[in-house]
Amino acid sequence: MAFKKIKPTLSKGTRDFLPDEVLKRNYLFAVIKEVFLRYGFVQIETPAIERLETLTGKYGEEGDRLIFKILNSGDFLSDIPDHLLHQKNTALVLHYVSDKGLRYDLTVPLARYVVQHQDKLFFPFKRFHIGPVWRADRPQRGRYQEFYQCDADVVGSSSLLSEVELLLIFSEVFHKLKLTDIKIHISHRKILFALAEKLGASAIFSRLAVNLDKLDKTDKQNVFNQLLQDGFNEEQLHQIDEFLNIQGESEDILSQLDIYFKDNNIAKEGINDLKFIVSTLKNTKAEALVKIDVSLARGLDYYTGFIAEVRDLSGVMSGSLGSGGRYDNLTEIFGGRNMPGVGISFGVERIYDLLSEKGLFPQDLVSVPVVLFCPLETDCIPTVIILAQTVRDNGFCADVYPSPIKIAKQLDYANKRKIPFVVIVGREELQAGQITLKNMTTGEQSRISAEALISHIKI
Amino acid sequence: MAFKKIKPTLSKGTRDFLPDEVLKRNYLFAVIKEVFLRYGFVQIETPAIERLETLTGKYGEEGDRLIFKILNSGDFLSDIPDHLLHQKNTALVLHYVSDKGLRYDLTVPLARYVVQHQDKLFFPFKRFHIGPVWRADRPQRGRYQEFYQCDADVVGSSSLLSEVELLLIFSEVFHKLKLTDIKIHISHRKILFALAEKLGASAIFSRLAVNLDKLDKTDKQNVFNQLLQDGFNEEQLHQIDEFLNIQGESEDILSQLDIYFKDNNIAKEGINDLKFIVSTLKNTKAEALVKIDVSLARGLDYYTGFIAEVRDLSGVMSGSLGSGGRYDNLTEIFGGRNMPGVGISFGVERIYDLLSEKGLFPQDLVSVPVVLFCPLETDCIPTVIILAQTVRDNGFCADVYPSPIKIAKQLDYANKRKIPFVVIVGREELQAGQITLKNMTTGEQSRISAEALISHIKI
Repeated sequence: MAFKKIKPTLSKGTRDFLPDEVLKRNYLFAVIKEVFLRYGFVQIETPAIERLETLTGKYGEEGDRLIFKILNSGDFLSDIPDHLLHQKNTALVLHYVSDKGLRYDLTVPLARYVVQHQDKLFFPFKRFHIGPVWRADRPQRGRYQEFYQCDADVVGSSSLLSEVELLLIFSEVFHKLKLTDIKIHISHRKILFALAEKLGASAIFSRLAVNLDKLDKTDKQNVFNQLLQDGFNEEQLHQIDEFLNIQGESEDILSQLDIYFKDNNIAKEGINDLKFIVSTLKNTKAEALVKIDVSLARGLDYYTGFIAEVRDLSGVMSGSLGSGGRYDNLTEIFGGRNMPGVGISFGVERIYDLLSEKGLFPQDLVSVPVVLFCPLETDCIPTVIILAQTVRDNGFCADVYPSPIKIAKQLDYANKRKIPFVVIVGREELQAGQITLKNMTTGEQSRISAEALISHIKI
Repeated sequence: MAFKKIKPTLSKGTRDFLPDEVLKRNYLFAVIKEVFLRYGFVQIETPAIERLETLTGKYGEEGDRLIFKILNSGDFLSDIPDHLLHQKNTALVLHYVSDKGLRYDLTVPLARYVVQHQDKLFFPFKRFHIGPVWRADRPQRGRYQEFYQCDADVVGSSSLLSEVELLLIFSEVFHKLKLTDIKIHISHRKILFALAEKLGASAIFSRLAVNLDKLDKTDKQNVFNQLLQDGFNEEQLHQIDEFLNIQGESEDILSQLDIYFKDNNIAKEGINDLKFIVSTLKNTKAEALVKIDVSLARGLDYYTGFIAEVRDLSGVMSGSLGSGGRYDNLTEIFGGRNMPGVGISFGVERIYDLLSEKGLFPQDLVSVPVVLFCPLETDCIPTVIILAQTVRDNGFCADVYPSPIKIAKQLDYANKRKIPFVVIVGREELQAGQITLKNMTTGEQSRISAEALISHIKI
């Protein structure tokens, strides 16, 4: 059948992965997964497609705009009232043409999942989930429309022990990946709520959080200018500046916070939580990596307690390598009892880039056959098939060149794939009941019996 | 912040997977992946989202309808000419509101991938790909809108050795899964082309293929009635019936085909291919599983040579457990040189259901911690954290109950998760520098030193 010719192109913001990249990505996912499992987490999966009702209204206006919406099947225009269509009222027409979209993160699907399956789960429910999410963001270097998230959450417990365990997971994973030059910044949304209260700006709290969240990406002056535009006055900025000057070692910051927020009960809750976390981490692997950073804000609306962000200290990668926080009422919207939760997310796309730039992927991540079988004539093929079978039955990876073309071309394929051994089978070999084994590294070549093959490639 | 309450619901035709289901699915994918790797295939990934230009026109009209289309971001109505909108001309409006969709299978993305990255790949390119695909099909038992495919293809070689290797992969995977009661039906599209030619019906070949493809799902009378409606006459049906009566052992079928298609060159090519495949499979694992079945048609338009389908003989599962075929011009549409290909696909969703019904999943597929640490008081938590760390550093999976609630509730959690050992740490234990170890199977409980813990749970 005839097709119209088209240029092979990816949809913008999406990527293909070459075989070597898939091996590296699988390695990264496997390291994280192993730690999740060892800490008692179980894996779940949710669909890529969710109802728009589930997705919208959870990520703010900007987030809603970035959700990929899927067109209803069939005649999607038929149900739209004429007047909406004639007005080209996109917002109202949307409800008629789309009722589902692609998941924007793994957290909202988790909330839906937990409520929907609560009778089949054990609480506290410790789950992890590794999978792609989609955002209609403007693509740029390091930012994709389709990318992986890698999350662990504890749902159904308000104990700070979960925070401690998640911080240990962060430190263990980065240690295993040999990314030792990192810091885990932690803070608490209640301290920020208290700051807004102190400023008399609780009503515009989210503007405060969103702007402070940009402090690690841009300079303070820009953030302050934006805060001014967003309704904060000079006096408030002065107080924010004072707040941001609370720096130092964790213990030190905690006592400064006690003074700064004297008699503020919300702040006290946040400070006490941080005190518990810091003291419980004493003498653990995470102790040296975790630091309190009062400027940490996290933009997302749903965090209500502890927040965390992992940063690269080596200066190679700006932006976070991981993040997390506690949310207290995410499951509420899906009905049933309210369950508190706390989770972390690895920025696997950024971590991948950082491992690449630092050359930290293991050298032995290859899927290369041990031996390539090269038939010289069509009538050698049945023998080659049987020989390859024996090698594979012994647990080795073997490849067979699919056609009896010139041996030079077959050897070229072996070289390109870096296959260490080649077995040549021609009519001569068939008659002698032997094979020719070529060591592609040394160039050595010898006639051996088929039975001896396994012992030769075992080395 | 307050959310509007909604009922937690999945989008139709999609599924969540509980932790136990994820373990089973991972087992199934791992078995297949191990065999792919041992046969020298490499893994690739392509994005879920592809340009509609890439996807449409490859799966027939019905297929195009079933592709999920994604709404363009922003004001998707603004560019539509008013007259199209007023006419509610869905087909023409579509081009203005959507330029991307979700992949419908893994084969068309492979064709795009191979052309786009040909300078970075080695040919023949043997790749496998495991991932979800999406179809806006009416959901029914066993049919989902989002489901996994699991494909291996050899691109860039027209050698039948690839067919042989793919059939060996089929037989090896089903053997490993202990699904031994299966048959791999094979045939050749050139034999069907020849049949159409002999009937003088080449112009309506695709109607012949699509209808014959239904022979394993419905009875012959229905298929013949449909053929009549699709333009075949009684005399042609008689000849088709004669053709379908070609049955028996493979060798037998091949000689009958020689006679039936005497002097037909297209048929001869197909028959010779099958002869090569059948004779090369002699003395291999696949020999007993493969049978020629002239009624096999495969509905898909792009197959041009060998075709295959795996069927369950036990009668538990109707429909195919796997399928495949050779296609000669799939890469052509994306420009560059034409590359032949041949591939197989495991029907992993059906195989999963069959393994479940037959109870063939391994019993030891569990991710259960060896030990649960139970703190009795908040001040026991730091000790518990350090102890858990030691156990995890020794490679064991350990869980920590996140809050010092009543021990009965903590033990209840251990029982539900089937955790074999529990370590209780209260103030008494802290003072004595010991821990209480409880064997949840026997109920035995004893005070031991923290240092002795590893040796106790190692058993």
